[in-house]
Amino acid sequence: MSLLIVGSVAFDALETPFGKTGKILGGAGTFIALSTSYFCLKPNVISVVGGDFPKEYFDILEKRNIDISGIQIKKDEKTFFWYGKYHTNMNVRDTLITELNVLENFKPEIPASYQDTDFLILGNLSPVVQREVIEGLKKRPKLIAMDTMNFWMDIMWDELMKTISMVDILVINDDEARQMSREHSLVKASEKILKMGPKYLIIKKGEHGALLFGENKIFSTAALPMAEVFDPTGAGDTFLGGFMGHLSKQKDINFENMKSSVVMASVMASFCVEKFGTKKLENLEKNEIENRITKFKDLTHFKM
Amino acid sequence: MSLLIVGSVAFDALETPFGKTGKILGGAGTFIALSTSYFCLKPNVISVVGGDFPKEYFDILEKRNIDISGIQIKKDEKTFFWYGKYHTNMNVRDTLITELNVLENFKPEIPASYQDTDFLILGNLSPVVQREVIEGLKKRPKLIAMDTMNFWMDIMWDELMKTISMVDILVINDDEARQMSREHSLVKASEKILKMGPKYLIIKKGEHGALLFGENKIFSTAALPMAEVFDPTGAGDTFLGGFMGHLSKQKDINFENMKSSVVMASVMASFCVEKFGTKKLENLEKNEIENRITKFKDLTHFKM
Repeated sequence: MSLLIVGSVAFDALETPFGKTGKILGGAGTFIALSTSYFCLKPNVISVVGGDFPKEYFDILEKRNIDISGIQIKKDEKTFFWYGKYHTNMNVRDTLITELNVLENFKPEIPASYQDTDFLILGNLSPVVQREVIEGLKKRPKLIAMDTMNFWMDIMWDELMKTISMVDILVINDDEARQMSREHSLVKASEKILKMGPKYLIIKKGEHGALLFGENKIFSTAALPMAEVFDPTGAGDTFLGGFMGHLSKQKDINFENMKSSVVMASVMASFCVEKFGTKKLENLEKNEIENRITKFKDLTHFKM
Repeated sequence: MSLLIVGSVAFDALETPFGKTGKILGGAGTFIALSTSYFCLKPNVISVVGGDFPKEYFDILEKRNIDISGIQIKKDEKTFFWYGKYHTNMNVRDTLITELNVLENFKPEIPASYQDTDFLILGNLSPVVQREVIEGLKKRPKLIAMDTMNFWMDIMWDELMKTISMVDILVINDDEARQMSREHSLVKASEKILKMGPKYLIIKKGEHGALLFGENKIFSTAALPMAEVFDPTGAGDTFLGGFMGHLSKQKDINFENMKSSVVMASVMASFCVEKFGTKKLENLEKNEIENRITKFKDLTHFKM
């Protein structure tokens, strides 16, 4: 199955209770691509960076067999930069700096070789850009999953609704689901959001796991309880990548396979938070992933 | 297996986004006893009420085959009364009135027929009272579970530590676990709290389910996602009752059986919140409980 990712490839700088980084590799597209790379033969990425984006960061992606030919390089511009700070409660973060740079006027270009994609992942970007990619594909992919955030709800509601109506799966966090639906109960929120278009909704709840809604069913997955969440940046993107990566390897798209894909999403996210930035996702061993799946089974399965 | 509960039998008054009640039947001991009554032949209750406690509330307990001979009646005093208000986020509540009344000088008296108990549940009360019950039993019960709250951590830390060191299972919520351990991570919190004495720790997380720690293992159970949480009062006590009730019916006390008991705890708590006060717990059908167990399996089990 071929898989196409649209999302930012960027610089992050981070402060957490465990330390500080300078500018490191980040961006939703980066985390999604790294995560899918453990499932998919050669994920394709559409993005844009500036002339300041170092070759060694491209090397990190290529080492994971990620196709970077869809990443535009704007020689005279600067790469998107985000600087964030986490407090003791890692669910809360302050954005200290956001420099859009190349993302400000990003026009996605789809290489011809990416046209025939089976799975499309729309990372968190302007809903207009997300829609341009859907509309730029001559054949609709088998499955389209999409992330978004409160920012787009605040400033581009109508555009967002248009794009959401075109996708199969929406993957957002609990605050975003509540804002989007104006419902506090996540069950009620899911009912409203599923009426906006997508057939499935996944609500990420950070350390509390995630909920999958669709086909009038609900599935709940735990997050792995951890002594230390080192850096939560990219965990949601890694979750999305793990979900779509695992799903792309299944024979059918049905609720049972989506359940195991949500668990795999949590498995991948649990690795992401163990080190700063993309570090942990750059070199995962197959048996590390398998051991963690076993951990998730032990964590949640019961007999009664 | 015989089961002894110590806890308040009281009046509650409630305001939730769904409505208001006058004084209704409440109290930790009441919710725990009602919940255990679906598993245990004749749960015993040690408590105290005032002369104002109506006969029809005793009838509710007796109809569920709960032994009330251990509930002292102080004719000239008034029953404990709590008045609380919930906001849209049902995890947060304001206490508007607390009248300790008969609880102020409560000295637990253990009827001779309660002496030989197998399972002891210490509902949220002063740690001194909780310890008096443990010490008043000539033979240590096979298993002692205990609840507590931040209030006792604030004003009776040393007494609390003494009592905690004597029990097998501590059942508290996430805020309480964080306050008790001064750790934000619940994994780290569990490590510290298990060093205080108990062999097992259950951390309740409201709508996010619960975590069970012990034997160097972790189990996570979901809460049933609900469109409407009508009234969360007593959910934690109902959880504790369901946990101990189900566990008391198992052949062995081991981690596997504690896992299914934590799920049963969540099952029972999911009923509690569906109506005001004890209403839903007064008349549950066996097949309602069985159907909900199936719902929990569907909600959390996956194949991979």
